Amino acid sequence: MERLLIIGGVAAGTKVAAKAKRENPDLEVTVLTREEYVSYAGCGLPYFIGDVIKDKNEIIIKTPESLKKELDINILTLHEVLKIIPEEKKVIAINKVNDEKVEIMYDKLVIATGASPVIPEIPGISLKRIFTLRTVSDALVIKSLIDAGRVKRALIVGGGFIGLEMAENLYRRGIEVTIIEHSKYILPGFDPEIALIAQKYLAKKGIKILTEEKVISFNGNEKGEVTSVITDKRSIETDFVLWSAGVKPNIELAKDAGIEIGETGAIRVNEYLETSIEDIYGVGDCVEMRHLITGKPVWYPMGSTANKMGRVAAINVAHSEKKEIFSGVLGTAIIKLFELKAAKTGLTEKEALKEGYEVETVLVPSNDLSHYYPGNKTIIIKMIADRKTHRILGAQIIGEGVIDKPIDIIVTAMSLKARIEDLAKMDFAYAPPFSMAMSSVIVTSNVMLNKLYGKLHGISPMQLKDKLEEDIQILDTRSEAEFVVSSIPNSINIPFDQLRHRALELDKEKETVIVCKIGKRAYLAYITLKKLGFKNIKILDGGITAYPFDLV
Amino acid sequence: MERLLIIGGVAAGTKVAAKAKRENPDLEVTVLTREEYVSYAGCGLPYFIGDVIKDKNEIIIKTPESLKKELDINILTLHEVLKIIPEEKKVIAINKVNDEKVEIMYDKLVIATGASPVIPEIPGISLKRIFTLRTVSDALVIKSLIDAGRVKRALIVGGGFIGLEMAENLYRRGIEVTIIEHSKYILPGFDPEIALIAQKYLAKKGIKILTEEKVISFNGNEKGEVTSVITDKRSIETDFVLWSAGVKPNIELAKDAGIEIGETGAIRVNEYLETSIEDIYGVGDCVEMRHLITGKPVWYPMGSTANKMGRVAAINVAHSEKKEIFSGVLGTAIIKLFELKAAKTGLTEKEALKEGYEVETVLVPSNDLSHYYPGNKTIIIKMIADRKTHRILGAQIIGEGVIDKPIDIIVTAMSLKARIEDLAKMDFAYAPPFSMAMSSVIVTSNVMLNKLYGKLHGISPMQLKDKLEEDIQILDTRSEAEFVVSSIPNSINIPFDQLRHRALELDKEKETVIVCKIGKRAYLAYITLKKLGFKNIKILDGGITAYPFDLV
Repeated sequence: MERLLIIGGVAAGTKVAAKAKRENPDLEVTVLTREEYVSYAGCGLPYFIGDVIKDKNEIIIKTPESLKKELDINILTLHEVLKIIPEEKKVIAINKVNDEKVEIMYDKLVIATGASPVIPEIPGISLKRIFTLRTVSDALVIKSLIDAGRVKRALIVGGGFIGLEMAENLYRRGIEVTIIEHSKYILPGFDPEIALIAQKYLAKKGIKILTEEKVISFNGNEKGEVTSVITDKRSIETDFVLWSAGVKPNIELAKDAGIEIGETGAIRVNEYLETSIEDIYGVGDCVEMRHLITGKPVWYPMGSTANKMGRVAAINVAHSEKKEIFSGVLGTAIIKLFELKAAKTGLTEKEALKEGYEVETVLVPSNDLSHYYPGNKTIIIKMIADRKTHRILGAQIIGEGVIDKPIDIIVTAMSLKARIEDLAKMDFAYAPPFSMAMSSVIVTSNVMLNKLYGKLHGISPMQLKDKLEEDIQILDTRSEAEFVVSSIPNSINIPFDQLRHRALELDKEKETVIVCKIGKRAYLAYITLKKLGFKNIKILDGGITAYPFDLV
Repeated sequence: MERLLIIGGVAAGTKVAAKAKRENPDLEVTVLTREEYVSYAGCGLPYFIGDVIKDKNEIIIKTPESLKKELDINILTLHEVLKIIPEEKKVIAINKVNDEKVEIMYDKLVIATGASPVIPEIPGISLKRIFTLRTVSDALVIKSLIDAGRVKRALIVGGGFIGLEMAENLYRRGIEVTIIEHSKYILPGFDPEIALIAQKYLAKKGIKILTEEKVISFNGNEKGEVTSVITDKRSIETDFVLWSAGVKPNIELAKDAGIEIGETGAIRVNEYLETSIEDIYGVGDCVEMRHLITGKPVWYPMGSTANKMGRVAAINVAHSEKKEIFSGVLGTAIIKLFELKAAKTGLTEKEALKEGYEVETVLVPSNDLSHYYPGNKTIIIKMIADRKTHRILGAQIIGEGVIDKPIDIIVTAMSLKARIEDLAKMDFAYAPPFSMAMSSVIVTSNVMLNKLYGKLHGISPMQLKDKLEEDIQILDTRSEAEFVVSSIPNSINIPFDQLRHRALELDKEKETVIVCKIGKRAYLAYITLKKLGFKNIKILDGGITAYPFDLV
């Protein structure tokens, strides 16, 4: 009987175990995990803490008992692996309960050791009530502390996905939340204009966000509990800290065994998910993957990717012939922040420029449903394309409307190497409760095509912000009523339908930026001014709706 | 100045007008429409009647005045076109207000005459209170009648999309609704097992559905108002009838002008949307289109298609060189029925078989969100693939969960000729509030791959229903608690985890169908029985969840 040994029992590890057993019931499958719990939904932990998910058993998908009973899989929990000895096809582990050493032989080994939070060595970091959140055990401790009413003010270090999801969930528990982020914007992996929209939204909700600020040290009380954090700018009192500034792949075991580590710092695997040593596979958060756009190795630890990799590795280890391949990822991610949602896939504008593409971008507000159907909400799509091939390089979507549908449409299109022209003609499902007649993805693609074919020139909010001090004229074509509510500093209001008669009020020679609510009236004004001989005109991408800077 | 003339002022017609003017502001654009209103959202009319949309102005996107003011487009409403004279590049119309004839010359002509309800000549069809629903004027009359409290019982003839949307909206207005459908199932364009789920759901809501029933005549009172309908089976009293049994393209003008009509009965156009006569284009519900899977001409009148066609035709008529192409449709459609939603794209199983494909199908229940995230709901995906190429041929989705996302993912994949293998590996956006870690589309694709690679054999609910009287054994692997609530007649309950010990209770030689809730435990049981030497075993596709027939 062939022996399959798996190190790691969360998403990827248990997926390999269960699928391999279904593929080949004759396999002897053993899972070693240093944790107490297996097969849990790590991504659900913030919602468990926030009481959105009431019972911890809801996020524990399988127990060792159920995996044994249903699939005859052996799970050894609280077993820390000390060493992999590939020459002898053997793994040495220690039972953390009784400190006994065990040696387990394998025919095939799968490394699914996951990732861990990066914790810096700064003064006070070992104080009580400074947490990271990665495992069920972490979540149980944090939740019991909150349930006991002992957290009033929480400080979150790191404005990435876990930090932001925890911000929402702590806030929901009645806790005052401050986020400290060392970079200029929260939401790493997003372009600034999108991140800024999220930042403004969270601030309005009452979450304090401090960017470009660095934690120096922590102070504690006599019980050894954290009481304040010292940053490079100030001191902040707190009774709870979540350190969520980065994670790193758990590669030590693999490295010690002589397995090749990739340039991203994660374990290198080929498309069959084999490591550099025969009969040893790697899956999940501890391995790197290929980026489907650039072809380069990247490291995006994601539960969804772990599951897919687990299935691929399982099929390959379960049969004598390996067949399944895992071709790569787009770096897709999505987050809910109260009613706001943000998603990304592929390259950001910055990354695309760095990769040397001839980049074109659009920023298009639209509705998720028909504008006349109740409950419709605005979303803003930023799309990044390659001018040469018209291929989609990336997209980011933000708004209170439905964003997971358009991002997944774009993911599908990008994976299949679609051009913008393809995307603009898709026969999407349309009825008023589900979509606009021209769906948001189609509208966005059409604006992109207008740009790619030179029908209009745009200027991004970031570029306009930088030009505000220069000698340009900003023409706001909205109605007077809209204009008086809020407008970009120093802009001139000529409502679109008066433009033909009042164009003389403008200077034909000056660089002119046209602004409206979302871009439609600006496009009409653009055509009018072009016909009137204006040379240097641009439309503000995304209009006032997507402009994340100060209005007057 | 070039003259562009458009016949028809709803979705496609006004889209051509507006986009052509933006492409080429020098064009002189005129729209002729026999209706009073232009540029309205026909798909919103049922929701306007149902009071979901309160104000008629919400569904009227543009008025003749706004189109004149903003884009300098001339709209002649209440002008019925009598004749197109291609040799003279001239159109003759009659002003329905003053009966004056007008002649209008064109350089380019676009026919966007739409479609009309099919009304049979049966006794009593001309009685008052028998309506069709196609235009704003239709909706205004119907709504005012309901607002006046004069409709208590409504009868809808035809269980297609408009009929069903109206059923929901009339019901919402407190009206007792009966639907009469002449075919075996409602929801034409769907396979029976999906249609049956919708039928059961609507019946449970209190909508009476009579299938395989034909309307013979109507009776009326002394005021000439309908009072009852006579079918081939019974007589039903009613005070309101909506006739929604079919629509036909308005092709008379085109036909009279010598323009070629396609085999579907709609106007034939090429990929540039040109008709058979030079400088005459056709767009929207009056023209046929190419099916992207079969390559054959089809006629699917849809507002979303009309908009896309309008844009393509506009770009082609606005420039001397035509560039834009409209490659075709998948026949995508979606409907909301109270909380239930149903969507389809591509070929049904029946259509795929008729086209000669080697068809494989799956029926997979799953969750729209993570199973542990509050508010998650079940959806059922039926997917149809080609065994030879592994290409997706079609899909149908039904359920109370989110279905528009998965159908649009599949639309995108099909448009780009994806194989099931591609779809199964997509890097979709995952976080618990948006999706399962393995999204519904991926789960469905994986089941399909298991079938395509011969890892399991399935039997559809329709096939099982036909076999119920035969000598087969049905093994229900759910728990005893689940089994006692409801099960398929004459099935044997052996909970999955007892199967290894109790398999002897089954007859190894008999054809065996394995059933569970959604298919997961059945798959494990399938593997167990196979190992035990059972030869003729099949899994019920979609389990009890997707089984639309009677349970005991």
